[in-house]
Amino acid sequence: MPESGTTSGAPRVSEIGRMTGFSDGVFAIVITLLVIELQVPDHAPGELLHALFEQAAAYLAFLLSFGYVGVLWLNHHTLLRLICGTTLGLNWINLWLLLGVVIIPFPTSVLAEAFAHAGTDRDRRVAVLLYALVAAAMSAPWLAFFAYLRRHPMLLREGIDRAFVSRQRIRPVVGMALYLIGGALGWFVSPVIGLVGIGVMIFFHAVTSEGVRRGRSRRRTTT
Amino acid sequence: MPESGTTSGAPRVSEIGRMTGFSDGVFAIVITLLVIELQVPDHAPGELLHALFEQAAAYLAFLLSFGYVGVLWLNHHTLLRLICGTTLGLNWINLWLLLGVVIIPFPTSVLAEAFAHAGTDRDRRVAVLLYALVAAAMSAPWLAFFAYLRRHPMLLREGIDRAFVSRQRIRPVVGMALYLIGGALGWFVSPVIGLVGIGVMIFFHAVTSEGVRRGRSRRRTTT
Amino acid sequence: MPESGTTSGAPRVSEIGRMTGFSDGVFAIVITLLVIELQVPDHAPGELLHALFEQAAAYLAFLLSFGYVGVLWLNHHTLLRLICGTTLGLNWINLWLLLGVVIIPFPTSVLAEAFAHAGTDRDRRVAVLLYALVAAAMSAPWLAFFAYLRRHPMLLREGIDRAFVSRQRIRPVVGMALYLIGGALGWFVSPVIGLVGIGVMIFFHAVTSEGVRRGRSRRRTTT
Amino acid sequence: MPESGTTSGAPRVSEIGRMTGFSDGVFAIVITLLVIELQVPDHAPGELLHALFEQAAAYLAFLLSFGYVGVLWLNHHTLLRLICGTTLGLNWINLWLLLGVVIIPFPTSVLAEAFAHAGTDRDRRVAVLLYALVAAAMSAPWLAFFAYLRRHPMLLREGIDRAFVSRQRIRPVVGMALYLIGGALGWFVSPVIGLVGIGVMIFFHAVTSEGVRRGRSRRRTTT
Repeated sequence: MPESGTTSGAPRVSEIGRMTGFSDGVFAIVITLLVIELQVPDHAPGELLHALFEQAAAYLAFLLSFGYVGVLWLNHHTLLRLICGTTLGLNWINLWLLLGVVIIPFPTSVLAEAFAHAGTDRDRRVAVLLYALVAAAMSAPWLAFFAYLRRHPMLLREGIDRAFVSRQRIRPVVGMALYLIGGALGWFVSPVIGLVGIGVMIFFHAVTSEGVRRGRSRRRTTT
Repeated sequence: MPESGTTSGAPRVSEIGRMTGFSDGVFAIVITLLVIELQVPDHAPGELLHALFEQAAAYLAFLLSFGYVGVLWLNHHTLLRLICGTTLGLNWINLWLLLGVVIIPFPTSVLAEAFAHAGTDRDRRVAVLLYALVAAAMSAPWLAFFAYLRRHPMLLREGIDRAFVSRQRIRPVVGMALYLIGGALGWFVSPVIGLVGIGVMIFFHAVTSEGVRRGRSRRRTTT
Repeated sequence: MPESGTTSGAPRVSEIGRMTGFSDGVFAIVITLLVIELQVPDHAPGELLHALFEQAAAYLAFLLSFGYVGVLWLNHHTLLRLICGTTLGLNWINLWLLLGVVIIPFPTSVLAEAFAHAGTDRDRRVAVLLYALVAAAMSAPWLAFFAYLRRHPMLLREGIDRAFVSRQRIRPVVGMALYLIGGALGWFVSPVIGLVGIGVMIFFHAVTSEGVRRGRSRRRTTT
Repeated sequence: MPESGTTSGAPRVSEIGRMTGFSDGVFAIVITLLVIELQVPDHAPGELLHALFEQAAAYLAFLLSFGYVGVLWLNHHTLLRLICGTTLGLNWINLWLLLGVVIIPFPTSVLAEAFAHAGTDRDRRVAVLLYALVAAAMSAPWLAFFAYLRRHPMLLREGIDRAFVSRQRIRPVVGMALYLIGGALGWFVSPVIGLVGIGVMIFFHAVTSEGVRRGRSRRRTTT
């Protein structure tokens, strides 16, 4: 175990082992709890097949959220590979970030209910807007994480420079903007279009999960 | 922590620590959530014993799925012993694989409900078919995992050769074929026969969980 | 990571890291899920306090099972400190052992329901008997674990001798016997006496959680 | 793995790896389970937005408890950084401490129900009192933890002195006193004032999560 002492006055630095273990536990539970939304449908005898098909929207919401949490985990994986230690401040930002992860099953089940059952068009707009707002709010702690690392470069792992960290801030900013646009589309135009916009956004996070880099300056940040 | 750098252009390799921790978390939660299906049965005063016996099908479904997830964990255990590092691509395949694990409680509870309560013969066929289809679909990411390792032998742990990895592909292929046959038997012939077929298939995965090997070429792949 | 190779033919030995992580995950989830049984009671407006008191039996069942799972974790902690590696066979026994842990919330909620609500005396006898039978059945894999270690002393950590392992077999045997007696008392004599007997048994496991040893031969098995 | 042997007669010391992993698992699950309280509200078609707003109290209870468990995790993080080994006695105290963590969702949902739905003023007083009593009772094992460390200084990590440990005892004592005052305020004066008092208390634990220290003697206790 590396002991990375700090000078008195600077925040105390500790290992990231427990931060990683706790975060992985939270991600694992959230991604698994999503399936609880999938219930055996009430059905008349002999009508199970029909009832299962009627739940198609709930399956889609499940897959959407599974993909979302999976992408978040990959992004978190990359995030923690930037650092070699943590502080109380960074632990708080990580907790804030996990709050966003933990809350996902709630807008997911609102979404699934609005699209599956007797949801009206208005309820669907509400559900898409709620999902978009939660997703946008979840981007804030990621921005705070990068900002904190810029101010405390001593936490950066060897081989990671501040310029790389600065570039990453574009991701949560784009996230916030586009989730809000997706929510607005869902609210003012059509809930289905809003849902597609959210799906596009998750895809954006998926392809940038290893960080935004410039063409040839692809640094070696292996772990 | 070993730093296994890669040449620029090749996928970045990172440690498998978090992949392992996250996967173990997911397996632990899924195998524990199965028990939630076991509810105290509604019963008239004094009729608890009778009501408990009437749930026999739910207990069997619980044991079947516990054994299934346990076998999957043993197989996953063996799988990760093949590699010494992971990449973004392999993380995606692992997430896909975990999707299959996470989803198990849903077809399990459909199965339990169809066999326990007022399920008709038709509903039971549907439930067996659903279970078989999910189990067959779960085999695909395992095939993808082995295929990925064949194309990226640098991820293989010392002492594991590509020929061994190639041989393992037979397992998910047999899995897919036999689960589909089990589902077809359940649908066209008899739900109980289909269920037996699925049980046989899980047993096959159990006995091959350390990998398929040839008689005497038993390599030492200790970890 | 130590590589402990084995000669061809002997079972392959692997590290206990994942076995430990997976087991800890299962224990953590089970001990946490117990609280789900504690529900906000239905109550008339202003009658919350009264309704909370009426749930006293559910609180006791919760505490009993929390203590039980805690004791099991401590015992498991001591168990894994005996070994320095695992095999496929030992993984199977560990899964069997975890099956017993995972199932605890079910007899617990049966017990809570029988003692809390409109349970008759007969239902309470059934609930105590069920709890005792499950607890007795849970002792079997512990016996199998010790028996396996006796046959494979190479898995024992340095400083642990076979005689110590042999002595431990007394614990699951006593467990099985006394749980069955507790169940019989609950069934034939009085459910409350049976419950007390189970509590005594859990206490016995608590005080012997570090293993049964002879007076002065207290070996140093620090980890 | 460091082997820290003890002289015969003294309690056997073992590593804190499993204690940490198990505790992190429990914290991760509790903080994630809190979201289960957030249910899609029953609502007339088209009234989803209105119904979501009516659940405001449940969202507040969720955030309060998320912050609480988060603060507890940070405190536990700091706690385990004091020690370099554990004993059976300390494992028991840690289990007792986790009992307090695990139980949080129950008073939280009582609180949410009393403030959200048709709760009367009297029910709200009961709910605030219950929350305060549980929170006060949770402080006891923290005090026991510090007391145990004072009696077994060999468990302290290098660089941590007994005086520092002694000073920490003030925190659970203040916690117990103030939670009880908060509960009394909620019971005798106003449930809302009691709730504010509890919030203040959680804030106190948050700002002291790295331990109470004297002005300039700020020791370097990096890990």
